[in-house]
Amino acid sequence: MTAVAEMLRTYPKDLGGVDQAKLSACIEACLDCAQTCTACADACLSEDMVAELTKCIRTCTDCSDVCDTTFRVLSRHTGYDANLTRAVLEACVAACKACGDECAQHEMSCVPVLAAQYSRCGFRLRSNG
Amino acid sequence: MTAVAEMLRTYPKDLGGVDQAKLSACIEACLDCAQTCTACADACLSEDMVAELTKCIRTCTDCSDVCDTTFRVLSRHTGYDANLTRAVLEACVAACKACGDECAQHEMSCVPVLAAQYSRCGFRLRSNG
Amino acid sequence: MTAVAEMLRTYPKDLGGVDQAKLSACIEACLDCAQTCTACADACLSEDMVAELTKCIRTCTDCSDVCDTTFRVLSRHTGYDANLTRAVLEACVAACKACGDECAQHEMSCVPVLAAQYSRCGFRLRSNG
Amino acid sequence: MTAVAEMLRTYPKDLGGVDQAKLSACIEACLDCAQTCTACADACLSEDMVAELTKCIRTCTDCSDVCDTTFRVLSRHTGYDANLTRAVLEACVAACKACGDECAQHEMSCVPVLAAQYSRCGFRLRSNG
Repeated sequence: MTAVAEMLRTYPKDLGGVDQAKLSACIEACLDCAQTCTACADACLSEDMVAELTKCIRTCTDCSDVCDTTFRVLSRHTGYDANLTRAVLEACVAACKACGDECAQHEMSCVPVLAAQYSRCGFRLRSNG
Repeated sequence: MTAVAEMLRTYPKDLGGVDQAKLSACIEACLDCAQTCTACADACLSEDMVAELTKCIRTCTDCSDVCDTTFRVLSRHTGYDANLTRAVLEACVAACKACGDECAQHEMSCVPVLAAQYSRCGFRLRSNG
Repeated sequence: MTAVAEMLRTYPKDLGGVDQAKLSACIEACLDCAQTCTACADACLSEDMVAELTKCIRTCTDCSDVCDTTFRVLSRHTGYDANLTRAVLEACVAACKACGDECAQHEMSCVPVLAAQYSRCGFRLRSNG
Repeated sequence: MTAVAEMLRTYPKDLGGVDQAKLSACIEACLDCAQTCTACADACLSEDMVAELTKCIRTCTDCSDVCDTTFRVLSRHTGYDANLTRAVLEACVAACKACGDECAQHEMSCVPVLAAQYSRCGFRLRSNG
């Protein structure tokens, strides 16, 4: 059992019938994506062709920030607000899509790692929403 | 001229016809709201009636995180992506609304400060979107 | 191989003799700690005895923010600055220690999960510094 | 009176003799610096000479993250921990110094704005520590 799943299991109040396995997977995907995007933006900055990668750097930086806020919102259950959660999930799906589309146009070694993250994160967010 | 407006003015490429005064006001509203919400969540935590303020604390904490990501996304202009920006603005409006509605139910001294922030932030985001 | 380790492996320039396994473990510990602390602060907020847990909630929230910034700084390698990195690592060790000391005084079910995270995060940061 | 100062004034418990004017100025400096650094990193990314500005972009991005966490920690007063606060302030002074030193080597139009921010932020943090 991951730490994310263990923290969910020890929450002191009722989680309102949420699918804990799906929610854990979703939080983990956001965490991973936040880190991968930060690392990707930095790796692009060190490429010789950095001038061709500026949109990629920007989109990855945005995506990292959005995934970061998303894992935080999804990790809180007290005083749950469905409208807020849904809007944050939609922003995260939009960020992952923008980032995935942009990165797919480049042939760098991090693309497969990133593609797996975006697709996992976007899929999990959608199936959870 | 504020630092936010000065940084906008010195951006080296074309900003694509954006209304710089509106955008600056919007970024400043998000910054202020991020700080006010963090301070409000902490002030509520020190109230004797903290047990009645848990939803307020949670909503303020979420709103702070969302406003934080929003000021960052709005402060970047390279490789602009309209879909991503719109989704982030919508999440921010939802967070400000949830927070404003919740805080309005309590009679604490910070409520007028907060109410001004949410309404300013929500209004500016909507008029900018 | 984790995504963190894969991203390190694909970095396009020389990493300057850094121990990649240690650095990956350190980034992962910060990521996990950021999430666990956010979840712990929220779980405490839903405890009936929330009024006795306010210092715990505050320290966990700070620790989450500090670990979040730390995983971001450690995930960047371009233009490395040793003084900045060291100061951020020290702040992170201080946050993990404050949080671990505070949480150890309570007997909630999340304490063992948290204790493992703080100690792992603090240890890895120190051995990496 | 700024919103930061008003929120401080409405804090429900004793602030322990802190100089409220200095603390407000310090929080505001961190907020401004977080935004300016995000905008500077993005502006550098759009310069034709981006390949010569990669260290500047990285240092600004780190500085923005550290200032962001610092304004959050300084905005909380419940369960104050002096060791944690001091370590975070030191990380923030180190980040502002690294960023100020790096940016001073370039002759772009944002440098005076940034220089004012770093120096204000570093000075206020030191005088507050």
